[in-house]
Amino acid sequence: MTSRTAHNVPLSADRLWRDLMAMAAIGGTPKGGCDRQTLTDLDGQGRHLLARWAQEVGLSVEVDRVGNMRCVRPGRDPGRAPVAIGSHLDTQPSGGKFDGPLGVLAGLEIMRALHEAGAETEAPLMLINWTNEEGARFSPPMMGSGAAMGIFTEAEILAKTDPDGAVLGEELRRIGWAGEADPQDLQRLGAYFELHIEQGPSLEAEGLEVGIVTHASAQAWFEVAVTGAEAHGGSAMAGRRDALVGASRIVGAVERIATAEGARGTVGRLLVSPDSRNVVPGHVWLSVEFRADDHDTLARMEAALRHEGAQLAAERDLQAAVEPFWFSSVTPFEPVLVERMRKAARDRGLAHKDMPTVIGHDAVYMARKVPSALLFVPCVGGISHNEAEAISQDWAAAGLAVLADAVLETAGLVR
Amino acid sequence: MTSRTAHNVPLSADRLWRDLMAMAAIGGTPKGGCDRQTLTDLDGQGRHLLARWAQEVGLSVEVDRVGNMRCVRPGRDPGRAPVAIGSHLDTQPSGGKFDGPLGVLAGLEIMRALHEAGAETEAPLMLINWTNEEGARFSPPMMGSGAAMGIFTEAEILAKTDPDGAVLGEELRRIGWAGEADPQDLQRLGAYFELHIEQGPSLEAEGLEVGIVTHASAQAWFEVAVTGAEAHGGSAMAGRRDALVGASRIVGAVERIATAEGARGTVGRLLVSPDSRNVVPGHVWLSVEFRADDHDTLARMEAALRHEGAQLAAERDLQAAVEPFWFSSVTPFEPVLVERMRKAARDRGLAHKDMPTVIGHDAVYMARKVPSALLFVPCVGGISHNEAEAISQDWAAAGLAVLADAVLETAGLVR
Repeated sequence: MTSRTAHNVPLSADRLWRDLMAMAAIGGTPKGGCDRQTLTDLDGQGRHLLARWAQEVGLSVEVDRVGNMRCVRPGRDPGRAPVAIGSHLDTQPSGGKFDGPLGVLAGLEIMRALHEAGAETEAPLMLINWTNEEGARFSPPMMGSGAAMGIFTEAEILAKTDPDGAVLGEELRRIGWAGEADPQDLQRLGAYFELHIEQGPSLEAEGLEVGIVTHASAQAWFEVAVTGAEAHGGSAMAGRRDALVGASRIVGAVERIATAEGARGTVGRLLVSPDSRNVVPGHVWLSVEFRADDHDTLARMEAALRHEGAQLAAERDLQAAVEPFWFSSVTPFEPVLVERMRKAARDRGLAHKDMPTVIGHDAVYMARKVPSALLFVPCVGGISHNEAEAISQDWAAAGLAVLADAVLETAGLVR
Repeated sequence: MTSRTAHNVPLSADRLWRDLMAMAAIGGTPKGGCDRQTLTDLDGQGRHLLARWAQEVGLSVEVDRVGNMRCVRPGRDPGRAPVAIGSHLDTQPSGGKFDGPLGVLAGLEIMRALHEAGAETEAPLMLINWTNEEGARFSPPMMGSGAAMGIFTEAEILAKTDPDGAVLGEELRRIGWAGEADPQDLQRLGAYFELHIEQGPSLEAEGLEVGIVTHASAQAWFEVAVTGAEAHGGSAMAGRRDALVGASRIVGAVERIATAEGARGTVGRLLVSPDSRNVVPGHVWLSVEFRADDHDTLARMEAALRHEGAQLAAERDLQAAVEPFWFSSVTPFEPVLVERMRKAARDRGLAHKDMPTVIGHDAVYMARKVPSALLFVPCVGGISHNEAEAISQDWAAAGLAVLADAVLETAGLVR
């Protein structure tokens, strides 16, 4: 399957697909997924393969101090800020073949197509492979882009440990990908584009081929401490102040609140104390995260959560302390770049819609300091972070074409 | 406050109270409770104090291989099996002054009163301080009596570890209380009596002074594994298979089922996987314990729990596997001994009632192999396992008197 960019550069979606399958073989699992967690030996192999492919099409490969790979193609005007395409090669432990690699390898295919066509752009182009987008082995996620945008310090990133006690900075050196460039250089990019699978079911369900992401929805994370009174498992039911029964009400309420608002709500962590089979729990700690498309909705959700806590106090003599833990406001993507992707989809007759992302991506951090854009393609059943993750070759081709059109329009193809 | 036993031996409830306060000073907490967990240095101090007091009134002190202390007063007929009084000096980490020590020190007061009166019994008497009744530092509870009755093997008890990795057998040696006697000797006791606080509110609420415990209610413990599917915190609410939302329904159901049956139900442990703030839990493991006065009730409760699990499968596509973990049938106490306590309460004009215990005690394990009896006194507000645990001196005196009457009747006071 070969198409041409709006600027008449030939793109090969078949080649992109072959690259995806070749990359997926590094850490490939029996069920057809991929386990190539960040800074493992396999991640090192994936990085070497990308570097080799990049060098074959004339890109120079540079690495920064948190391990982000930057593969640069010079522009005709070296004074112009580079236009970057990025995503990540690391996966979840039981991850798929497309989340991350699609965006990196689509960028590579654009570079390769330009190379074969002998084409030049005004601005330099850059292909970025971010370190640890997944946050599976080392928490938090999106470390590489976060360090680049000054959201995290390099020192804190390099000191992170995995569950076995391995230190990120040492793992980076061990696999040979600790570079010398300053990650914050990337704050001076002219533009940043990212192609990613939706990780949700809406595009496929609506029969669409690409999603034009206009903004990242807001997130508000809370910690809730429910305090009752420890009691013996033989104590009468009446008069118990069971913190876990109270916390269970919060868990149910979070689901109810999010569903009612058409938003998202998750209790991902819950710790019981004293954690003994025959002791009524006196204390429960739990995390709540809410995601919504606008701040008003998020404020209503928080109020509903606090109301549920107050009900527990009134009805069960339990204290439920709701503390804000983290907040991320709505992040708009750059309207000029967004419109370039929308126009590309329209001109190519691809079925598309505007949509937010409720999931964090490197592009969301990038958008804090660099004009940025994010493009989605469907994934089967909305399944991601799973070995069963799948996309069609047509969707990959659609994403590749829209990405190429918008990137080349932004970088200025020399005709 | 001094009274006389039905057999005219003078008992001092004041002296018992002073002993309770002296013992509570070892590990005493600022809030008036006690932290004297099993096999700590403080437990060793408490044991030494008891041994000194016992020796002062002519008892010989022997220790068995799991650390149970046996303080023996010879009988006129050495061929008769000893009549024992027992409880425990170990406490919960935030325990009170009475749970355990009351039973041990009331036994001591009886020995002391006999000593001062120069009185003799036909059968030998034995005062027992059981190792690790609480199960707080080393699980499970009631280890000493369990090892004595062959419910646990010595080897398994001695190999238990606390959360810091300390091994029980080594701790026992470290504090100097690893003895040489065979714990299973105690299966040949003639009778066993235990005085304990109720750890529930009913006696106080009904204005009663002692509770005559006729049987231990049955317990059925389960483990429930709820399996759904991990998903990203940004995924749509519809279609989620959130194991924690399902587990919360189980927690609510356990409370509802137990309340409806007038029984007890507790979820004391609950573990979430993968335990990440922004991941919908794919798996939750939880413990369920049910306690009821008869086996039919327990069977209905189990059926209701399984029904709730099946509902989760039907409504939410979650698997809820309910596995039996432990079962303890209804344990009757020895009717002859129970009637002796009842008669003593009646003769003394003490307000009393027959009742079951829904809480495990060393007497429950003892009742498997030795004719046994358990006597309750009220505690304020039903509060136990808590620094605020409190009893009145009158209640202590009532328990002491009934215990003494029944023990001396059983052992045969020589007049």
